[in-house]
Amino acid sequence: MSTFVFPARTTSSEIELGTTLQPKFGPDGLIPCITTDHLTNEVLMFAFMNAESLALTLATGKASYWSRSRNKLWVKGEESGNAQLVKELRVDCDQDVILLKVDNVGGASCHNGYKSCFYRKLAPGATVANEASLKLEMVGRPLFDPAIVYKKK
Amino acid sequence: MSTFVFPARTTSSEIELGTTLQPKFGPDGLIPCITTDHLTNEVLMFAFMNAESLALTLATGKASYWSRSRNKLWVKGEESGNAQLVKELRVDCDQDVILLKVDNVGGASCHNGYKSCFYRKLAPGATVANEASLKLEMVGRPLFDPAIVYKKK
Repeated sequence: MSTFVFPARTTSSEIELGTTLQPKFGPDGLIPCITTDHLTNEVLMFAFMNAESLALTLATGKASYWSRSRNKLWVKGEESGNAQLVKELRVDCDQDVILLKVDNVGGASCHNGYKSCFYRKLAPGATVANEASLKLEMVGRPLFDPAIVYKKK
Repeated sequence: MSTFVFPARTTSSEIELGTTLQPKFGPDGLIPCITTDHLTNEVLMFAFMNAESLALTLATGKASYWSRSRNKLWVKGEESGNAQLVKELRVDCDQDVILLKVDNVGGASCHNGYKSCFYRKLAPGATVANEASLKLEMVGRPLFDPAIVYKKK
């Protein structure tokens, strides 16, 4: 997979309105990826892919990413069991963002045990006029205990 | 707004499981932002914010971003009329991604006139074994004509 080369970028018109997949990887070789629940559209997580992980995702049907913190290919769920089966892949207008619609086996996409990484929302009344008001409220509940699932050292 | 400073990053535990908004702006001063329809969860667009645009978003209730291509603050809809009224703001586990749930006035978030920037999906049968199979299919239809709305030069 490591040598897979996606179709080259062509014209702005073909990139934006055409029918050839021409993903744009940044100077760091990465493209942002938004992953959603294929049934509810809920945003589950946000991560990056390199060409290798995108090719592996297409080849296996399971979401793979590039972990910037661990600097390695990351097959989602390889440790936690919470794999993501890809039901649909989309690109945005300029093909520099990937959107995956997945069936999240196990139900949790976040390493903290939540279904979605976006388990907190800004509290009502938050205002930039008062820094102390910039509080978050929990809107998710954990589905697993990371300390057990990842067998912390 | 340009001098607004968000609460400083503290401990990993407080960032990931706490209740204080502590957004992480990258070395370029930007944080990724995923914008969704508040009623359907459909992903409308992906863009970046700097501290100024995030503060302006909170102060006005209208989504503002930082345009990397134009290198300027960008109040969504200022040209097209398709403003985004923020109904909810979320952060991800490590607070380095923003999620907005918005009411998209006018209905179109994409500069090409579509509701969502993600108006194309990978076609069935696409495989990395055959580059020619990596085709996109249109799944959206334009709601406005960009040539008219943006009065192209």
